[in-house]
Amino acid sequence: KRTGYPEVIYGEGKTVDQIVAIMRALHTNHQNILATRILPEQAAGIQKALPNVTYHETARCMTEVATRQPETKSFIAVVTAGTTDIPVAEEAAVTAELYGNRVQKVYDVGVAGLQRLLMHIDTIRQAKVVIVVAGMEGALVSVVGGLVDVPVIAVPTSVGYGASFKGMTALMAMLNSCASGVTVVNIDNGFGAAYSASMINHLGGTDD
Amino acid sequence: KRTGYPEVIYGEGKTVDQIVAIMRALHTNHQNILATRILPEQAAGIQKALPNVTYHETARCMTEVATRQPETKSFIAVVTAGTTDIPVAEEAAVTAELYGNRVQKVYDVGVAGLQRLLMHIDTIRQAKVVIVVAGMEGALVSVVGGLVDVPVIAVPTSVGYGASFKGMTALMAMLNSCASGVTVVNIDNGFGAAYSASMINHLGGTDD
Amino acid sequence: KRTGYPEVIYGEGKTVDQIVAIMRALHTNHQNILATRILPEQAAGIQKALPNVTYHETARCMTEVATRQPETKSFIAVVTAGTTDIPVAEEAAVTAELYGNRVQKVYDVGVAGLQRLLMHIDTIRQAKVVIVVAGMEGALVSVVGGLVDVPVIAVPTSVGYGASFKGMTALMAMLNSCASGVTVVNIDNGFGAAYSASMINHLGGTDD
Amino acid sequence: KRTGYPEVIYGEGKTVDQIVAIMRALHTNHQNILATRILPEQAAGIQKALPNVTYHETARCMTEVATRQPETKSFIAVVTAGTTDIPVAEEAAVTAELYGNRVQKVYDVGVAGLQRLLMHIDTIRQAKVVIVVAGMEGALVSVVGGLVDVPVIAVPTSVGYGASFKGMTALMAMLNSCASGVTVVNIDNGFGAAYSASMINHLGGTDD
Amino acid sequence: KRTGYPEVIYGEGKTVDQIVAIMRALHTNHQNILATRILPEQAAGIQKALPNVTYHETARCMTEVATRQPETKSFIAVVTAGTTDIPVAEEAAVTAELYGNRVQKVYDVGVAGLQRLLMHIDTIRQAKVVIVVAGMEGALVSVVGGLVDVPVIAVPTSVGYGASFKGMTALMAMLNSCASGVTVVNIDNGFGAAYSASMINHLGGTDD
Amino acid sequence: KRTGYPEVIYGEGKTVDQIVAIMRALHTNHQNILATRILPEQAAGIQKALPNVTYHETARCMTEVATRQPETKSFIAVVTAGTTDIPVAEEAAVTAELYGNRVQKVYDVGVAGLQRLLMHIDTIRQAKVVIVVAGMEGALVSVVGGLVDVPVIAVPTSVGYGASFKGMTALMAMLNSCASGVTVVNIDNGFGAAYSASMINHLGGTDD
Amino acid sequence: KRTGYPEVIYGEGKTVDQIVAIMRALHTNHQNILATRILPEQAAGIQKALPNVTYHETARCMTEVATRQPETKSFIAVVTAGTTDIPVAEEAAVTAELYGNRVQKVYDVGVAGLQRLLMHIDTIRQAKVVIVVAGMEGALVSVVGGLVDVPVIAVPTSVGYGASFKGMTALMAMLNSCASGVTVVNIDNGFGAAYSASMINHLGGTDD
Amino acid sequence: KRTGYPEVIYGEGKTVDQIVAIMRALHTNHQNILATRILPEQAAGIQKALPNVTYHETARCMTEVATRQPETKSFIAVVTAGTTDIPVAEEAAVTAELYGNRVQKVYDVGVAGLQRLLMHIDTIRQAKVVIVVAGMEGALVSVVGGLVDVPVIAVPTSVGYGASFKGMTALMAMLNSCASGVTVVNIDNGFGAAYSASMINHLGGTDD
Ligand SMILES: Nc1ncnc2c1ncn2[C@@H]1O[C@H](COP(=O)(O)O)[C@@H](O)[C@H]1O
Ligand SMILES: Nc1ncnc2c1ncn2[C@@H]1O[C@H](COP(=O)(O)O)[C@@H](O)[C@H]1O
Ligand SMILES: Nc1ncnc2c1ncn2[C@@H]1O[C@H](COP(=O)(O)O)[C@@H](O)[C@H]1O
Ligand SMILES: Nc1ncnc2c1ncn2[C@@H]1O[C@H](COP(=O)(O)O)[C@@H](O)[C@H]1O
Ligand SMILES: [Mg+2]
Ligand SMILES: [Mg+2]
Ligand SMILES: [Mg+2]
Ligand SMILES: [Mg+2]
Ligand SMILES: [Mg+2]
Ligand SMILES: [Mg+2]
Ligand SMILES: [Mg+2]
Ligand SMILES: [Mg+2]
Repeated sequence: KRTGYPEVIYGEGKTVDQIVAIMRALHTNHQNILATRILPEQAAGIQKALPNVTYHETARCMTEVATRQPETKSFIAVVTAGTTDIPVAEEAAVTAELYGNRVQKVYDVGVAGLQRLLMHIDTIRQAKVVIVVAGMEGALVSVVGGLVDVPVIAVPTSVGYGASFKGMTALMAMLNSCASGVTVVNIDNGFGAAYSASMINHLGGTDD
Repeated sequence: KRTGYPEVIYGEGKTVDQIVAIMRALHTNHQNILATRILPEQAAGIQKALPNVTYHETARCMTEVATRQPETKSFIAVVTAGTTDIPVAEEAAVTAELYGNRVQKVYDVGVAGLQRLLMHIDTIRQAKVVIVVAGMEGALVSVVGGLVDVPVIAVPTSVGYGASFKGMTALMAMLNSCASGVTVVNIDNGFGAAYSASMINHLGGTDD
Repeated sequence: KRTGYPEVIYGEGKTVDQIVAIMRALHTNHQNILATRILPEQAAGIQKALPNVTYHETARCMTEVATRQPETKSFIAVVTAGTTDIPVAEEAAVTAELYGNRVQKVYDVGVAGLQRLLMHIDTIRQAKVVIVVAGMEGALVSVVGGLVDVPVIAVPTSVGYGASFKGMTALMAMLNSCASGVTVVNIDNGFGAAYSASMINHLGGTDD
Repeated sequence: KRTGYPEVIYGEGKTVDQIVAIMRALHTNHQNILATRILPEQAAGIQKALPNVTYHETARCMTEVATRQPETKSFIAVVTAGTTDIPVAEEAAVTAELYGNRVQKVYDVGVAGLQRLLMHIDTIRQAKVVIVVAGMEGALVSVVGGLVDVPVIAVPTSVGYGASFKGMTALMAMLNSCASGVTVVNIDNGFGAAYSASMINHLGGTDD
Repeated sequence: KRTGYPEVIYGEGKTVDQIVAIMRALHTNHQNILATRILPEQAAGIQKALPNVTYHETARCMTEVATRQPETKSFIAVVTAGTTDIPVAEEAAVTAELYGNRVQKVYDVGVAGLQRLLMHIDTIRQAKVVIVVAGMEGALVSVVGGLVDVPVIAVPTSVGYGASFKGMTALMAMLNSCASGVTVVNIDNGFGAAYSASMINHLGGTDD
Repeated sequence: KRTGYPEVIYGEGKTVDQIVAIMRALHTNHQNILATRILPEQAAGIQKALPNVTYHETARCMTEVATRQPETKSFIAVVTAGTTDIPVAEEAAVTAELYGNRVQKVYDVGVAGLQRLLMHIDTIRQAKVVIVVAGMEGALVSVVGGLVDVPVIAVPTSVGYGASFKGMTALMAMLNSCASGVTVVNIDNGFGAAYSASMINHLGGTDD
Repeated sequence: KRTGYPEVIYGEGKTVDQIVAIMRALHTNHQNILATRILPEQAAGIQKALPNVTYHETARCMTEVATRQPETKSFIAVVTAGTTDIPVAEEAAVTAELYGNRVQKVYDVGVAGLQRLLMHIDTIRQAKVVIVVAGMEGALVSVVGGLVDVPVIAVPTSVGYGASFKGMTALMAMLNSCASGVTVVNIDNGFGAAYSASMINHLGGTDD
Repeated sequence: KRTGYPEVIYGEGKTVDQIVAIMRALHTNHQNILATRILPEQAAGIQKALPNVTYHETARCMTEVATRQPETKSFIAVVTAGTTDIPVAEEAAVTAELYGNRVQKVYDVGVAGLQRLLMHIDTIRQAKVVIVVAGMEGALVSVVGGLVDVPVIAVPTSVGYGASFKGMTALMAMLNSCASGVTVVNIDNGFGAAYSASMINHLGGTDD
């Protein structure tokens, strides 16, 4: 791990006690802490033991900042198709910010209402890297990918029903995107998208 | 079958002799003939026996018109994402025209180059029903579906490789389209899309 | 959105507060409201805040009519194979009526008892467009499709067990229907079927 | 193996020499011979060595009768949806006849043209057991199953394209048939259906 | 429906009130009643309203006999691989008995302990038709199918974990059985197997 | 790599020239050579350049022995269900022998003819490890696994059609075997099974 | 079963009463007892009736030792990629120990932190057989397989989300491992891996 | 398209005439040309018409450079697991070089021979972005991802057999990589990986 970088705890399936123990160890080491996939009940339990850890409810993440990372001048755009994609987008945003990235959120610009997307496209175009979060058929990725000249990281979400197969259709669609410059991460993996985006956004340093 | 309507022969897996025999019977009955999925080799063999039957090479269809159907005033728009989707689109167009529909073709307007699509959107909007033909991730369906107020019939094509699964990804994506007003047919089924579109386009008669 | 058309809220995964907030905004705008996939518990909570919103229990939908849409003369037939398909059919019926369509329901006419279907086939034939809702093997779609001359929109349902794969078998079967004139929507998507059917039923105006 | 019963050779992937060797051994033992999945080229090669073996071209089967099985009075109905299902149906018919069963063929009665099926339903109803052979969505099985009171054995065929998945859709649909009294065999397995049907048709003896 | 035959109610997803209503109607008609997939809670509720309806707990079935069907001399063998397959086997047994069949149960004879199966094979061989119920890899079907000369109806169960895919592996394995004379029904479909088996067992009358 | 152990070349998709080049290098190093998945045409080409390399036609393997490995006293049993599984079994046998193992082949003992298997079970029981090769439903693995007390390595084969899914059904069935002591390798992977079996068979040395 | 070997009870889906009854019978027979997949609630209930049965909470297993098996000199290494794989590893370890094997645990050495694995590789190399337990993409299997010269048994776990498909991705990856000497068991099947490993570890006796 | 950037032609399924026509148009425009998925036969035909277009046989690509892009100081590492992955890696390398990137190739460093990978890891670590190309189980991605601190783009290849499912297993494994900083493209999509990598490698300009 690079110095100053947060340690990450994947919360799903861990007990409050297990998470508190890991956080305590990190805290003692003066490390930044990021925990993802934390349910409200877990968060409440953790905060009883460690009241200084912040809970980001929509993002389902907890953070504690020991040393604030210097913020990049360039930014990561986090774009969603619908409102139900927002928790995954927020996981990406919280992660990216903790890793010292400036973030611009452009939510709810799905392609069924193209004008809304076009209204925000200039913001998106100025990003150094774009994270696109979408469920159902994931068409937003191809449209954004065609409109920008920077790397696009696509995050399929498990939003949808029936033949959406809990995100599998969005995942496959994104891997087949007709736009060049798109790479893909696992379903609902906002953290992973932000981690790669942060690496890209930091190329050239934080003053770029 | 409604009077004057063509009989349809599905050519795949049939021998030249079998197809010629069916066509002869239809010809004797003065029926319009449509044969789909006819390879060039089959077509050549059939035309030796029946020189009056026309071969539409890109569409892989053969037709013979006994009684021309009156043409509708309203039209069906047939839209494709890429050039490799054109054979399926042409199967739809040949079918629709034989069934007496005016057809407007808008090819190669995939969403990775959105401006090309927007250039033609007014034509598409004036159609009574739109057929959208796309492979890979099928995103064009959602974008068109969001831009028009008429029924959209989506045809996934087997164009693509790897995780396109011979059209399955496009099919699933289209069934999950975030745009309302979209219904879907089987992979590569240009004929079926045109048959349904023709029914819709004829509602209110041929003068509408 | 065309004027007078209801705004639609997809209720699954939304909190009562979120839904109430959206409904309030629409109400203020004097818009017709349709919310689908609303559980009885959600409905009760919503009605506490907004007592004028009607809950259609079987359809799992809520509606509020600001401006009643003029009703079409022509009608949409909504047909089901079994009784367990009725909630999806009702979602379609409630949607279609809110969009100003006359609707005829023909329920429980699955092909294992063909005589029951044949008894009602004349009603179905007079429809301008037919919605067929079926789970398990979805055979009803092909039989109805073969008996009528109007567009058929097929809705697979998640009814069944084992190799029904929560509607996937019905969906695939419907996409392979041997009857021409059939298009398909996502599993359990009664709303989507009704939206497309309404577009078709309105071609030629409400007096047709 | 019960005495007098043919030995069966599955021809796919076997060389002419291998098949001839097995047939010679059976011939020496005065056993009835049935070989399935024999291509015309293989058949020609085999007949050079063993001119008395009959080739059933459509069924892709070869037979040699040492001792003719007494024929049953009751019969097996073999029913197909389309013409492309006939090779599988013929495999079933050739098998059933060699095993001493009277067979009635009712071909090309798919449900998209229900009247044709109803025209032949009385014949089908008089059978002691019915084999239904169908590809695509396999809806014929449910309709026939609902109309007869005898066991129905369903054979999905690999006929179709796109989402027919080489017979998988028909197979799954048949396993979910809403009609009682239906059991299913592997895709294209005309032989297996006939083998089970023959067992059933022989219950009560050949004079029943 | 043939006279004297029970009407069948599929209990899954129905309320106590719905089931009671259907049962009341059948009772009034003096019809035999069979309800499958009834949970203990449902059963308790139903018996409050209709105390004469019997609940078969392991089989998860309810029955009421208005006219007892004459019992066949020949019998159906119901065979299971493990103890966890017994509920599905009991559904088959209860169904078969209600339809007037003598039934012999041979449970827990999975092929991992072959000697136990061989100990009971003579009983199984005397059956007119055999139902084999198995989960996991379903190997019992092929072994029994190879040892008996009567029709075998295979019922895959959803018993297992991981790559058993809730019965899909057993289903596919059974469809590929190397033994002739095997046909297959849907996962956990004890009722369907018994219905077909009863048809077969009654061929030649109840004195056979 | 342990000294004296053959280097392995996977032939599929390699040109004759590429294979010859690798073999030459190994030959120069006095290493034992094993090449798998070599078609007859490839073999002919290779033998033109390297006449001392032996081709095992059924096994589709080529070998050259520089230093013969000492043979184990204990042996590996290689068992197949059908004759079409033999090429995969031979790949296993050739591999095992080259690695210095005594091998006993027991072919064509599928469970549909259980007596044949029981006739050879004593041989199989004396092996130190058993390789079971089977396609279709793979039931032989569970029966053998239940009859022996040594490790069983299961090799699914791509033999079968329809719902055998080119070996996937056999693979899944074997992973769900009800017999303990079974582990599984990839479809058609005779080499891999033999490699693991050889490791096991050599435990305790070659005199065991 | 070999003398002294534990009887195994698969706890999932069994009631406390059923498990107690089986355990009582085994206890009376002075047999070692192993029960897997026992939830804490079940364990508590069982221990009320049978206080001498030990519950291994992480392993979700219960054991009672009547006759302790002599311990092997050689050992089985049980290796995990992450901490969430530990329950499956513990099921393997408890099983292996009860069967008389010395066990060495090397947990949490996933390949994303290669140095940790390399730190422990010498321990792993001294094992007679290695069990590798991993979820997600299962890459640890190939790395360990490449580093050791003994048989590796791979256990995919259902750990992960999205495209991990409850262990299916890990299972498929392990079957395709580029390392020789790897065989695979069902998802989460720690018991099965230990059973095979125990057989291998006992070759040459307990003093080896 | 950014100025100076090559136009890309996807060759699969296009005729020589179609490709020549597109290339001619680009040539006239003085544009750089890249054509992928060109078979040797196609290449020969194209070079007859356009002798100045270079064919990269292993990469299956054709290029013509009108204006050479300035080369970056930083480089892209292209890493493969096996030799059969090289064509996909070469497609990536040819693409990257045409887009003006310095490229370092590190081939045949699969994890089954970890020491070979570790020997080259310093080279890989100095890259600005790493492309990892692997088939089968794709484990190389996780190992490399864990060893480097730059973005990794994973390309699954269709190399393998049986349960590799033409690259699907590698694709799924890579999406589940336990290493952070990994994003994924479609199976065999060397071009797409290089396109994204080039965007990343150019951040900060060509002198970085
Ligand atoms: N939301 C997430 N999705 C995917 N991977 C994650 C997520 N959060 C954390 N991780 C990864 O999981 C690792 C920690 O896992 P664990 O040790 O089980 O807490 C981190 O180093 C990250 O690589
Ligand atoms: N390209 C096509 N795709 C799907 N169905 C078709 C196609 N062409 C024809 N058909 C259908 O196939 C029927 C004719 O099949 P056949 O009798 O086998 O020639 C027609 O009535 C159509 O319903
Ligand atoms: N068309 C068929 N489909 C399925 N099984 C068949 C077929 N034809 C023959 N068989 C079975 O294959 C066995 C012969 O296989 P083989 O020994 O490989 O020739 C017969 O005993 C039958 O059980
Ligand atoms: N965790 C496990 N995974 C797979 N199989 C198991 C497991 N535990 C027990 N078994 C098998 O299940 C059998 C007992 O099943 P049962 O009779 O249902 O308790 C044992 O003989 C083992 O072969
Ligand atoms: Mg772009
Ligand atoms: Mg629209
Ligand atoms: Mg019709
Ligand atoms: Mg019936
Ligand atoms: Mg039999
Ligand atoms: Mg055993
Ligand atoms: Mg090794
Ligand atoms: Mg890294």
